[in-house]
Amino acid sequence: MFDVTRYAIAAQSIIDAGRFLYGQGWSPATSSNYSARIDDEHIAVTVSGRHKGQLVAGDVMVVDLDGNAVQSNARSSAETRLHTVLYQTFPEVGAVLHTHSVKATVLSRLLPAGKPLTLQGYELQKAFSGIDTHEAELTVPVFDNTQDIAALAQQTGDWFRQHPDQPGYLIRGHGLYTWGRTMSDCLRHVEAFEFLFECELETMRVRR
Amino acid sequence: MFDVTRYAIAAQSIIDAGRFLYGQGWSPATSSNYSARIDDEHIAVTVSGRHKGQLVAGDVMVVDLDGNAVQSNARSSAETRLHTVLYQTFPEVGAVLHTHSVKATVLSRLLPAGKPLTLQGYELQKAFSGIDTHEAELTVPVFDNTQDIAALAQQTGDWFRQHPDQPGYLIRGHGLYTWGRTMSDCLRHVEAFEFLFECELETMRVRR
Amino acid sequence: MFDVTRYAIAAQSIIDAGRFLYGQGWSPATSSNYSARIDDEHIAVTVSGRHKGQLVAGDVMVVDLDGNAVQSNARSSAETRLHTVLYQTFPEVGAVLHTHSVKATVLSRLLPAGKPLTLQGYELQKAFSGIDTHEAELTVPVFDNTQDIAALAQQTGDWFRQHPDQPGYLIRGHGLYTWGRTMSDCLRHVEAFEFLFECELETMRVRR
Amino acid sequence: MFDVTRYAIAAQSIIDAGRFLYGQGWSPATSSNYSARIDDEHIAVTVSGRHKGQLVAGDVMVVDLDGNAVQSNARSSAETRLHTVLYQTFPEVGAVLHTHSVKATVLSRLLPAGKPLTLQGYELQKAFSGIDTHEAELTVPVFDNTQDIAALAQQTGDWFRQHPDQPGYLIRGHGLYTWGRTMSDCLRHVEAFEFLFECELETMRVRR
Repeated sequence: MFDVTRYAIAAQSIIDAGRFLYGQGWSPATSSNYSARIDDEHIAVTVSGRHKGQLVAGDVMVVDLDGNAVQSNARSSAETRLHTVLYQTFPEVGAVLHTHSVKATVLSRLLPAGKPLTLQGYELQKAFSGIDTHEAELTVPVFDNTQDIAALAQQTGDWFRQHPDQPGYLIRGHGLYTWGRTMSDCLRHVEAFEFLFECELETMRVRR
Repeated sequence: MFDVTRYAIAAQSIIDAGRFLYGQGWSPATSSNYSARIDDEHIAVTVSGRHKGQLVAGDVMVVDLDGNAVQSNARSSAETRLHTVLYQTFPEVGAVLHTHSVKATVLSRLLPAGKPLTLQGYELQKAFSGIDTHEAELTVPVFDNTQDIAALAQQTGDWFRQHPDQPGYLIRGHGLYTWGRTMSDCLRHVEAFEFLFECELETMRVRR
Repeated sequence: MFDVTRYAIAAQSIIDAGRFLYGQGWSPATSSNYSARIDDEHIAVTVSGRHKGQLVAGDVMVVDLDGNAVQSNARSSAETRLHTVLYQTFPEVGAVLHTHSVKATVLSRLLPAGKPLTLQGYELQKAFSGIDTHEAELTVPVFDNTQDIAALAQQTGDWFRQHPDQPGYLIRGHGLYTWGRTMSDCLRHVEAFEFLFECELETMRVRR
Repeated sequence: MFDVTRYAIAAQSIIDAGRFLYGQGWSPATSSNYSARIDDEHIAVTVSGRHKGQLVAGDVMVVDLDGNAVQSNARSSAETRLHTVLYQTFPEVGAVLHTHSVKATVLSRLLPAGKPLTLQGYELQKAFSGIDTHEAELTVPVFDNTQDIAALAQQTGDWFRQHPDQPGYLIRGHGLYTWGRTMSDCLRHVEAFEFLFECELETMRVRR
């Protein structure tokens, strides 16, 4: 059984995150999904298909670590297992955000199949927990989009077990997944990724 | 005779839509026009030439399905028949939005005459009612601009009777038309289109 | 002598215009200047060097049609005579706005010396008073920047006496001048120009 | 000993600057740092790692001109000495802002090693204190990024002692440093720089 107060706090952090992310243009047209850990066995996650800038209490439900709804008939996000695999793999993760910006979408489609996005020389890489120099190299893998979420959860879980220091990934034509110890850290990671995506695209625009 | 309360509710949805769309930069300089269905025979539609981010009650009038003003001397939008032909063709449509963004305008001018905009591989295609996979192909026809609205209403009505699953169209140098069962669905469709237009333009900017 | 109430109303329209224009990013770093007609002999105009998004009552002074301060020791905008020549040339003009956007600045620098910006095929050309078709051709002359304002006032006055239907001009590396019968019309003209500038630049970006 | 009221006023100017700069997108993901002079020996500066759009009183500390914390155990910004060297070199400087925009980051990475950014022909150059014509040439040096702040403080101090009229500099992949007599002047300088950076990038985007 989960603690109701902890659920309420987790849900509020998700609602507030949605207002910010939608306002930035990173969660258009009911896309995206957000989650936050309640305890070792329970995750608060957005219900499928809601407007992310206008989330209310009833738009956040509880699932277990296999993605099954707990005490609810609501349908969780179709991608819930992409969240739960991260909570299972990394016990210290407290929040996961999937956003769907133009830049993440376009960049993921421009990268050749099998090639990750690599970033180096940006001071803002230090915004990611654990990175303390601009000389480190960030690797952002790009996974092909699919309606088979179970398979994608397996793929992403495997890759990040092997590369636990990397902070996020892209799904081709679909957006970004990133996480953090707290929702605050996770939002900072999204901001940093969107900044870096824009830097890369701007560089491509002027060098074309 | 139309129900006054239903008119008032339809008008309010239009006023609210205008605040949002103008705020996004998609309805500049008194451009654009919006409508919502009142009943089988009556449509609420914006009066011609009003600032779309500052609509008030008197800026929304009633027309019949031929575009004639009902109980009003006000001049409806010059393009009213582009709205009414959709309500006639699709009984389930409850709202139609014509927006006028930079991206819709530029993209429509870049496409060669007779060629539609085709979109594929974007997860956000699923934002359109009836689409459930990123592997579907969206076809967005581009019609030449004209001051002869009756002819354009005929053209668009014919095309969409043959392609009822496609969610909208462009008028060259003039903007986007899209619709939905509710105003909420329709706004989501506009957001999705603008996202996809920007993805396409961004891809064109970075590719030689 | 000017009517104090008419001055106050003109000043308020300028203050409100500044909040909007600064918020759009079109009047950065204390650039720009705005004016509105009080009567046949008096113009309200922004004092030199004030933050245009934070104008208060004391930031708007009165000048005569030669640009001389009336009942004030404040320094009017350095470019006041670019405003007064328009009020002298066109008795029906009630407001003049000089804005300083990135797009106006960049476009004006890209155009070869002596060549105007010509625009055609945009439905939004109809936002300019007197234009009723997208097939008309808009001509926007570009004047070289100079610190000799008297000479530039002469140049612009002469050109628009010969082309009274054209709605505005650019100063190279310096921005846009446009006007209208009312402040509301004038703001609509600025919005339309910025939209068209962005369309032109976007087209250049993707066609490069 | 510093005057507490002067500290409070300096801190408030920093907090307000942060709200504005973060809102513009120029201080993402806890990047950036800001300072203001309290007196000849004391500087108010942002504590390391705080969200710059949500600064509160406890996020601003006091340091001396060598960057040592005064009456505090908090950790000042890692780059404090890049601020203090400016207060030492220029007694009239009252505020220093380091911002971290996409445009500053990208432009600084595009410039070849050893080459400054030179700007000419922009009317908005006059936004910088001491510049009164668009025909002047602005030189913005680009220093390589480094974790050795003492060395960079030496480098920047030396360069600006030789070029006291130039208004700011870039750190490659890291952002902009600029200053002013007051926080208000300094904010105007940041706005002017970001405008000019965008003009330069836009020109590069459209030119082959």
